[in-house]
Amino acid sequence: MKHGGGYQPKPCIADSDPTERFSNWDYPEIEEGKLTRYNWIVQHKENLVLGYKTDIGAFTYINAKYGVVLEDYAQIGSHCSIYSFSTIDDKMGQVLIKRNARIGSHTVIMPGVTVGENAVVGAHSFVNKDVPANAVVAGVPARQLQLKQGG
Amino acid sequence: MKHGGGYQPKPCIADSDPTERFSNWDYPEIEEGKLTRYNWIVQHKENLVLGYKTDIGAFTYINAKYGVVLEDYAQIGSHCSIYSFSTIDDKMGQVLIKRNARIGSHTVIMPGVTVGENAVVGAHSFVNKDVPANAVVAGVPARQLQLKQGG
Amino acid sequence: MKHGGGYQPKPCIADSDPTERFSNWDYPEIEEGKLTRYNWIVQHKENLVLGYKTDIGAFTYINAKYGVVLEDYAQIGSHCSIYSFSTIDDKMGQVLIKRNARIGSHTVIMPGVTVGENAVVGAHSFVNKDVPANAVVAGVPARQLQLKQGG
Repeated sequence: MKHGGGYQPKPCIADSDPTERFSNWDYPEIEEGKLTRYNWIVQHKENLVLGYKTDIGAFTYINAKYGVVLEDYAQIGSHCSIYSFSTIDDKMGQVLIKRNARIGSHTVIMPGVTVGENAVVGAHSFVNKDVPANAVVAGVPARQLQLKQGG
Repeated sequence: MKHGGGYQPKPCIADSDPTERFSNWDYPEIEEGKLTRYNWIVQHKENLVLGYKTDIGAFTYINAKYGVVLEDYAQIGSHCSIYSFSTIDDKMGQVLIKRNARIGSHTVIMPGVTVGENAVVGAHSFVNKDVPANAVVAGVPARQLQLKQGG
Repeated sequence: MKHGGGYQPKPCIADSDPTERFSNWDYPEIEEGKLTRYNWIVQHKENLVLGYKTDIGAFTYINAKYGVVLEDYAQIGSHCSIYSFSTIDDKMGQVLIKRNARIGSHTVIMPGVTVGENAVVGAHSFVNKDVPANAVVAGVPARQLQLKQGG
């Protein structure tokens, strides 16, 4: 076994609270159709609206042709697809991910979908209809699991 | 909120019909094991046969060691894996995606599989056996949902 | 149809046994947060421990903030996420993939999880608890399918 560096096990305590997590957050530079330094890709970047302290995971693909809006604090996991235009289905429509919504890894968001404030979408989901505020959804296609207590 | 550019909501009307979609289509340049300008990757590119107006999504990986054929107009979504060789299972065999077949996002096609003409494979599927022409399949593993009317 | 090169159908026989597969294996060069030449990405690479003849697929993302250990001969498919830190859930903890374990394509391994020796995790799985040695698991979340005979 080779250590990648000075690895030491660390206690399982988060080193930051959410409001601190991005204390150095800044709007990312996006070059059309190219990996950003965070390793996600946007096409039609002129139609992407990116809120404050949004977070997008590695290998996520955003097709913003018909508009994609990520409101403040929205989080997108790795390996997601956010389609405002799906050439395979010939579907199109603005995607709106509202404030503080969280989208799990490997999730597909289809054209025209709105994900409500504080909603959580589980990993590996296929979201082809709107997700209400505070809802927790998962699955292919995504279905509602429960309403969060106290939102 | 910051606008990525001069974003204006647009009407939900496709700006092209399928035959027009790739009016400027050309065979993509592929460099062995490197991201193409469309952000997919091929290994063993000498064994990849790419039909006319085929479409491959971002972050898709093709291992063509034992042959991968995409016939004309075949569409592959983002985040797919097309394996003619799967080292994890030690499985191998040519993959054939026939004319006008469509493979949804996040789908795995296993070695030896043929996907028939006009067939549709849903997002997030794991395809380990042949898909008949005009069939619609989905799931892990993929199962047939229905036969398309009028194919 | 255009051939990517001198494509000839090949017989379906593996050209290597597992011990031969990586006869030229070497520790990969990793640059923090950048695609390796094998097209996977590591963040916090100083906390990644990589065993001998490990294999990691294209478009796999490893967040090693709280430690990720891949023991000798561990295999990770394409499009996987190995999280020792999941910002969406605020979960954290070392991930340990033990000797000869195999993780299928498009699988998410959550913080704190240990995958036992020789275990197999099916494609498209979401693994949020430990996987015993020699087990075969799959699903979202992953559940045990069977114990391998003779492990």
